[in-house]
Amino acid sequence: MIVLFTDFGTGSPYLGQMKGAILREHPQARVVDLLADAPAFDPRASAYLLAAYPQDFPAGAVFLAVVDPGVGDPRRRAAAVRVDGQWFVGPDNGLFNVVARRGREVAWWDLRWRPPRLSATFHGRDLFAPVAARLDRGEPPPGEPVDPAARIDRSWPEDLAQVIYVDPFGNCITGLRAAALPAGAVVEAAGRRLPRARAFHEVPVGQPFWYENANGLVELAVNQGRCDRALGLAPGSPVRVAEEAR
Amino acid sequence: MIVLFTDFGTGSPYLGQMKGAILREHPQARVVDLLADAPAFDPRASAYLLAAYPQDFPAGAVFLAVVDPGVGDPRRRAAAVRVDGQWFVGPDNGLFNVVARRGREVAWWDLRWRPPRLSATFHGRDLFAPVAARLDRGEPPPGEPVDPAARIDRSWPEDLAQVIYVDPFGNCITGLRAAALPAGAVVEAAGRRLPRARAFHEVPVGQPFWYENANGLVELAVNQGRCDRALGLAPGSPVRVAEEAR
Amino acid sequence: MIVLFTDFGTGSPYLGQMKGAILREHPQARVVDLLADAPAFDPRASAYLLAAYPQDFPAGAVFLAVVDPGVGDPRRRAAAVRVDGQWFVGPDNGLFNVVARRGREVAWWDLRWRPPRLSATFHGRDLFAPVAARLDRGEPPPGEPVDPAARIDRSWPEDLAQVIYVDPFGNCITGLRAAALPAGAVVEAAGRRLPRARAFHEVPVGQPFWYENANGLVELAVNQGRCDRALGLAPGSPVRVAEEAR
Repeated sequence: MIVLFTDFGTGSPYLGQMKGAILREHPQARVVDLLADAPAFDPRASAYLLAAYPQDFPAGAVFLAVVDPGVGDPRRRAAAVRVDGQWFVGPDNGLFNVVARRGREVAWWDLRWRPPRLSATFHGRDLFAPVAARLDRGEPPPGEPVDPAARIDRSWPEDLAQVIYVDPFGNCITGLRAAALPAGAVVEAAGRRLPRARAFHEVPVGQPFWYENANGLVELAVNQGRCDRALGLAPGSPVRVAEEAR
Repeated sequence: MIVLFTDFGTGSPYLGQMKGAILREHPQARVVDLLADAPAFDPRASAYLLAAYPQDFPAGAVFLAVVDPGVGDPRRRAAAVRVDGQWFVGPDNGLFNVVARRGREVAWWDLRWRPPRLSATFHGRDLFAPVAARLDRGEPPPGEPVDPAARIDRSWPEDLAQVIYVDPFGNCITGLRAAALPAGAVVEAAGRRLPRARAFHEVPVGQPFWYENANGLVELAVNQGRCDRALGLAPGSPVRVAEEAR
Repeated sequence: MIVLFTDFGTGSPYLGQMKGAILREHPQARVVDLLADAPAFDPRASAYLLAAYPQDFPAGAVFLAVVDPGVGDPRRRAAAVRVDGQWFVGPDNGLFNVVARRGREVAWWDLRWRPPRLSATFHGRDLFAPVAARLDRGEPPPGEPVDPAARIDRSWPEDLAQVIYVDPFGNCITGLRAAALPAGAVVEAAGRRLPRARAFHEVPVGQPFWYENANGLVELAVNQGRCDRALGLAPGSPVRVAEEAR
């Protein structure tokens, strides 16, 4: 199974073109659209978002992940990373930093293979899709294994205290894992302290709150309202974790 | 075949996560995205919309339908409903009221099975997707059969005289079946009487009209224009059916 | 493999309904969403866009293409066209004019078959989807072969000097093939001369430029910005190709 995670936008031909490239290489592949509106041009925020989803997919799943503002730059490496039995293929620009750091068994390959015809701007189609297709067929990565420690940037924070995704309801997903919060922590955004709830129906309609979302992240929401508009939040907005007031 | 009908939005990870859950349970499943922008938080309007689409899918199709503002509330039941050879799985909040009422052969199950790990906010992934996968494999519903009459709310109107969906062109689909209108009926919206046409090319560019859409519903449109903006309509806007003026 | 190219919009039920119709006829079909926001009501601009994508799909691919403002008009013919080993099915309104003109081996059929139940407004579901399913199964087109020269309109320009698609990043794809530009040509849009680059990273952030996109078309862009807003461009905006200033 190949899972697509990109910032290409849902109303674009680019996802379909990648699927064409996958199916040319591997006509039986199953392809699942996971996310086409990852934080645009922002591999760092995207990395914290990507790391939340492997749990939803089976062992052996291949994540074809492309958030790649440096596409075409010869200095940008390409990577295939194996983390706890799943694959991640895409640009080596930090996008796999979080999932690899949190993994137990991690292996990393610098991709050396290049297609006969490599466009300057669409490596998702020309390079990463064919590699994902091969991994999904069970072939080894066409590259060179390297020590993951040489590729993972440990200067990044464990969790990212900002909004990293606004969903179609206006719910604001942050880069904070709820389980990583200190006991009694309080979440603040846009200068407001937000109460915690377990589910939407527990909160009066229209009131902002936070909850641990179904993938373990701190998510800011308004019951039957748009949290992004209510609080003026957007991807990149900071979130603050404070000690509970006595 | 599993058909997805939700209010999750097209630009969200939630559809892909449900597909991951389906494919973990049933790797050969065919999954079709039908609608991701059903009337948000509105199981009633969604129910009239959902009832228009089974005709387009083969016998045995499993509709995985989630419009679920009460998710996480322990009082909200979960349902699997069999209507004329097709399945409907999702929250028991009225969403299957219309399709079940209009069905000839209807059977209803209260779902009793719960997954080992049930999030408070994403039963589409955790509960309904695995159940849909099992039904698609031919297994029986993991629940208890109940009399459909105990679950169907017959106080709802046969048809819903309002806009229930605005498509990407601005066409306004109503909850009225054209075949259920009295002979000589006139459709009014936004205080205007709309002429009837059979197809767009019959109407001058820019003029509002109504027609029986390809699924039998009364749809308000403007040839090569946006009816929603031209008439100031949105989901929930009332529509009026009047006797033809003499 | 069946590839969907329409102006139906990504947030609509119409794509899923077409897939239902395909899978009823051919349960094993692979269906790929290529584009759902082709230039609306504009078969001509859509034709130049469609012609850029066959290269991304394998031999035998069936393009189910619907941009059909004249749907329901009895004068509008329906077509199946074979171009260099791939199929194109949809309305005969110019949509296949460009791909057929540029093809080396072209065969054209007027579709004669009509389904038992043909709606007035959704031939994509009722007529074109079942025909695409049959072609994908290897059956011949249910129609009558005609001389392509009788169907191709050679009065159209070889390339279309306008914006034909704005992608989710705001990049503006034109109907001009970069390889067809005269040597030393300069591209102008919105009264500005745009420099040429090979990839985004070569250009300062915020500066408009043009490049040959991954499908060979002239595309106007701003590195990490929205070209459509920066230059005030939209589908239909003219582009000018000038001789390079001495």
